[in-house]
Amino acid sequence: MSLKAKDLISAADLTKAEVDEILKESDVMLSYLTKRKSPDILKGKILATLFFEPSTRTRLSFESAMCRLGGSVIGFSGNKGTSLSKGETLKDTIKNVEKYADIIAMRNPVEGSSRLAANAAKIPVINGGDGANQHPTQALLDIFTIKQEKGLKKLNVALCGDLKYGRTVHSLIYLLSMYGMEVALVSPKSLRMPEWILEDVKGRYGTNPKMYESMQDVADWADVLYVTRIQRERFPDQNEYEKVSGSYCVDNDLLRKAKKGMIVLHPLPRVDEIDDEIDCKPCAKYFDQAFYGIAVRMALLKMLMGGKR
Amino acid sequence: MSLKAKDLISAADLTKAEVDEILKESDVMLSYLTKRKSPDILKGKILATLFFEPSTRTRLSFESAMCRLGGSVIGFSGNKGTSLSKGETLKDTIKNVEKYADIIAMRNPVEGSSRLAANAAKIPVINGGDGANQHPTQALLDIFTIKQEKGLKKLNVALCGDLKYGRTVHSLIYLLSMYGMEVALVSPKSLRMPEWILEDVKGRYGTNPKMYESMQDVADWADVLYVTRIQRERFPDQNEYEKVSGSYCVDNDLLRKAKKGMIVLHPLPRVDEIDDEIDCKPCAKYFDQAFYGIAVRMALLKMLMGGKR
Amino acid sequence: MSLKAKDLISAADLTKAEVDEILKESDVMLSYLTKRKSPDILKGKILATLFFEPSTRTRLSFESAMCRLGGSVIGFSGNKGTSLSKGETLKDTIKNVEKYADIIAMRNPVEGSSRLAANAAKIPVINGGDGANQHPTQALLDIFTIKQEKGLKKLNVALCGDLKYGRTVHSLIYLLSMYGMEVALVSPKSLRMPEWILEDVKGRYGTNPKMYESMQDVADWADVLYVTRIQRERFPDQNEYEKVSGSYCVDNDLLRKAKKGMIVLHPLPRVDEIDDEIDCKPCAKYFDQAFYGIAVRMALLKMLMGGKR
Repeated sequence: MSLKAKDLISAADLTKAEVDEILKESDVMLSYLTKRKSPDILKGKILATLFFEPSTRTRLSFESAMCRLGGSVIGFSGNKGTSLSKGETLKDTIKNVEKYADIIAMRNPVEGSSRLAANAAKIPVINGGDGANQHPTQALLDIFTIKQEKGLKKLNVALCGDLKYGRTVHSLIYLLSMYGMEVALVSPKSLRMPEWILEDVKGRYGTNPKMYESMQDVADWADVLYVTRIQRERFPDQNEYEKVSGSYCVDNDLLRKAKKGMIVLHPLPRVDEIDDEIDCKPCAKYFDQAFYGIAVRMALLKMLMGGKR
Repeated sequence: MSLKAKDLISAADLTKAEVDEILKESDVMLSYLTKRKSPDILKGKILATLFFEPSTRTRLSFESAMCRLGGSVIGFSGNKGTSLSKGETLKDTIKNVEKYADIIAMRNPVEGSSRLAANAAKIPVINGGDGANQHPTQALLDIFTIKQEKGLKKLNVALCGDLKYGRTVHSLIYLLSMYGMEVALVSPKSLRMPEWILEDVKGRYGTNPKMYESMQDVADWADVLYVTRIQRERFPDQNEYEKVSGSYCVDNDLLRKAKKGMIVLHPLPRVDEIDDEIDCKPCAKYFDQAFYGIAVRMALLKMLMGGKR
Repeated sequence: MSLKAKDLISAADLTKAEVDEILKESDVMLSYLTKRKSPDILKGKILATLFFEPSTRTRLSFESAMCRLGGSVIGFSGNKGTSLSKGETLKDTIKNVEKYADIIAMRNPVEGSSRLAANAAKIPVINGGDGANQHPTQALLDIFTIKQEKGLKKLNVALCGDLKYGRTVHSLIYLLSMYGMEVALVSPKSLRMPEWILEDVKGRYGTNPKMYESMQDVADWADVLYVTRIQRERFPDQNEYEKVSGSYCVDNDLLRKAKKGMIVLHPLPRVDEIDDEIDCKPCAKYFDQAFYGIAVRMALLKMLMGGKR
């Protein structure tokens, strides 16, 4: 089994064998990082970061991963002044960039755009987030973080916050289900996870998550509390937002009720969902995720391009 | 003869011996690319890409070429927040950047700005497009594409579309003339090639191109159909635009009338000038141009900086 | 004494022994640059350039320095679309980026923001300008330029222009005082250096600069004329601006009165403060500063990251 020359568009495309392989390779990469070694595995290779929607975290993380492997990066952030703003189709842009690079990492506000790009490109395409759809590398770094911090056993995982528009949870629920974890979904009624995703994971893995509306309800159950941002703009009625937002904040009060050993994850950026008094607690793993993310993206770049160790 | 430490501002500055040398070196670079070798010819060298006007294609192409040769890239895209926006002159900007880099590739909306920059700089400056004036590296990759696909013999080449503001054709006509090709100019009356360019190539090479107003008229004559975009904004009267735009579209209908072996080129981005049903046809070489372009820019970077193989 | 793993936030934080060491290391780096050698001292290391406020000069200078040492660069310029624009705190941004890089160079319009970032980060942070507060690497390159051009002896140095908002002079006065130089301050009354800085350097080094309102008054006294830009926007009354701006322009008339051997420095960009007829004169050292700046930033990157020669 090999990921070489494949695309990474959706977590749903991955087999368990492939995820196993990615996590194993991420382990190797993590040991390079902790030893501060930068192997020249991808020397002479070029990553194109096409971020039609600006991003600090995901773009810099990919670029860091490529640099750590000795490769180079070209790209853009924001679509102002790109060929697309001159009326070029995404397909044409991709058919040019594939001549300049060996792999593409792309973020685009349009759902499905990464799939389209992957179909047009002869080189591997990694989806770095396509609208509210998927963000598979985030899900892989989330599951790698869980593996490192708790082990890949039958854990209770609560996904909390905006489950409707949050693309990271749309990807993560596939990987959690794949490893047989128990999933709880905690969100305001209006921001529940789309029905078709629930049906898809049920059909594939038999996952049948319970629904909650407050994090208080899952605090003493969860081994992993995965928190996402609820955007004020999602609520037409601002009073509605004020009413619910209090139920989606991790603070000392919530932690007192928490199951022993529970860890808190967040794809970041956070706004008010996690009180910063939590940052120094042992349960806070959301900044470690960023570090694990470099290892996972190094693994993906290496595997998809077929770099040899 | 050596291009070392020279600037590349206009196709008109190049002698045939120099273009021969560039094409020969591009051949060598192309073989590196097809073998997926990245030689460290420019290791330790720095390219500054100063794109006062944003660009995806040309900037990424230069950056890719530099990375393939083991060099590094610094620069900016868009003039927001640059020193120029604080009132600095271009000359001052250049006299700083020349301290940071070994070669400059610049795009600027002002015609003649590249020449000004080259005069100010002690390091080589490559014109990556100065307004409607010149775009010599595009012309070099165009002629390299023609050489690879058809050979540098006496070919019939039709330049089509906006010949007034399209800087790529302003550069290309010099190189076509230099190699003794027959040139036809196909454009709406209001977008004809500037008279002074026609006089200049006539004086230098005796070129005396015929004028046409529809691509239909040259389809069975041309070995190379070089298509450029006609921008709607060029027409004060939108009805006028609608009237002419139909005569500048390559589609299956046009191809049926085409001379055997004709190839279609386009500097891209295209909007409606080439129907995408053509993309899979053997005549479609406009995406290959992007690939050849990397080889040509690698050759130029190496030659202008005097890098040794 | 070692700068390894320290931050560089304010010139006031540096001891004379540390500045001596930086200048000595800059000398070594300068010899690499003049010999056109790019040693791989920082190979595998990553510099993150976080420019929340766009900058051409300082950002490109840091990036060039990192590339010359064989390292890689990731980062952004302008805060549009960054996580901060999504409501993330600077502290959270830093706690992510520290996972992606080995050192951070940051510019931010908020005074004190670099100190905050340094406190949050486990990796070294270099202040690349925080509002009107400090710009220590500029001051270090200024003092290095003075050392190279005049020697570090008891010189007369006139700081001219906007001494209230100009962060470069706020940093430079510490280093000049540290080396026992005589300082004169030349500015409009409304743009005088903040009282607290004057008291701080007086308390530390006994510096007691004389105040002037016209460069004519110091022309025959100064060995170094350090000129900064006076921004029109600083004057609520535009007539007031017109009245004073004439007293802050270096031209041939001023040079005729100048002390023999006087050199003119400017952090750039300039607008009207130095007539470009001066550029070719031997006293004009403001473009050389940019070159010396690469050496100084190479030295800082190496020392703060503890790279070995």
